[in-house]
Amino acid sequence: MATPLLQIALDNQTNESAIKTLNSLGNEVDILEVGTILCLQEGKSAIEKIRALYPDKIILADTKCADAGKTVAQNCKDAGANWMTVICCATIETMVAARKVMDDVQVELYGDWTFEQAQQWYDNDIKQVVYHQSRDALLAGKRWSDEDLNKIKRLIDIGFKVSVTGGLELETVKLFKDLDIFAFIAGRNLREVENPAYAARAFKEEIKRNFES
Amino acid sequence: MATPLLQIALDNQTNESAIKTLNSLGNEVDILEVGTILCLQEGKSAIEKIRALYPDKIILADTKCADAGKTVAQNCKDAGANWMTVICCATIETMVAARKVMDDVQVELYGDWTFEQAQQWYDNDIKQVVYHQSRDALLAGKRWSDEDLNKIKRLIDIGFKVSVTGGLELETVKLFKDLDIFAFIAGRNLREVENPAYAARAFKEEIKRNFES
Repeated sequence: MATPLLQIALDNQTNESAIKTLNSLGNEVDILEVGTILCLQEGKSAIEKIRALYPDKIILADTKCADAGKTVAQNCKDAGANWMTVICCATIETMVAARKVMDDVQVELYGDWTFEQAQQWYDNDIKQVVYHQSRDALLAGKRWSDEDLNKIKRLIDIGFKVSVTGGLELETVKLFKDLDIFAFIAGRNLREVENPAYAARAFKEEIKRNFES
Repeated sequence: MATPLLQIALDNQTNESAIKTLNSLGNEVDILEVGTILCLQEGKSAIEKIRALYPDKIILADTKCADAGKTVAQNCKDAGANWMTVICCATIETMVAARKVMDDVQVELYGDWTFEQAQQWYDNDIKQVVYHQSRDALLAGKRWSDEDLNKIKRLIDIGFKVSVTGGLELETVKLFKDLDIFAFIAGRNLREVENPAYAARAFKEEIKRNFES
């Protein structure tokens, strides 16, 4: 198993705030995610500014695209993103249209989706999914369960690179240690701390401890 | 039955282009939709600029929100929007969080959703849905069918204000004449014409002809 990557979810409200986060931890993490909130607040300038600062990092635009896949993908690519997200209830046509433009596309798994759909995504060259605990569901008290872990395993068995996110804390990492996780995505637990670089290094250490043995 | 409203989908690429569209048809239509593409390109400034120009119009932010409902809603409201969209596969917690902030929330119907879910949205004070032909599905040859019309009728029977969109042309309006449609949403057929104001008036006339008899 490869060691899982670490992705920072930049759900900041402004470009200035996102850049402040990156100034601390930008070089510690593997994937820079321009969060949906930031995309909607600052538009494509968020991607452009982060690309200018990090010419060689993987940048993911978390557009959660539901329609107009080609246009949204081209806009994100033009701004400097490598990957983008689409929402699981988008039509396959939307996903394929986005996939044709971007280096890769991640399907964000929210609400009801089926493994039959997942197989269809995979058969259409969409190789990444994000398994999500919704922020609002977490606020309502939901937690990671065996049911979640079993679903993640089935997605990995199909062939997907599976990233996991939603209330990830240092102690959550070990829950996944028997699974071939592609990336851990953390947001406020890296951003909203005194020293984001330190928090990112601690996360990387915890990932190594659990996955490199 | 009330006469259906007309909503312009401002899926322009820039604020300048959107404002040019509005300069022509802004006073002819009932609802100004800041399209997803425009939201992602220009960020909140798109809502802010359109609100500044049209202090009294209904402005809908087509965020297709899938998570972080409270934050996205508050950001849209702060920028000047009255309503926002959420995607149908968002959790009920996300929808409720958005609804608590905004004057109203529209659920965008893409992919698989159930009438059981729809009843749950309605029971949680979400009174609007958008029945959609996906742009990418249309590009792949899909058209409005009796199955679509029957589903729309069932949503109206639940109590929803149902807006319809997706490849709407002047000749499409009469398909819906026996249904209590809340709003017709048109984009490129109003924007990408020589005289958007004239196209909007023709749409309004066609709506009146079919619904005021």
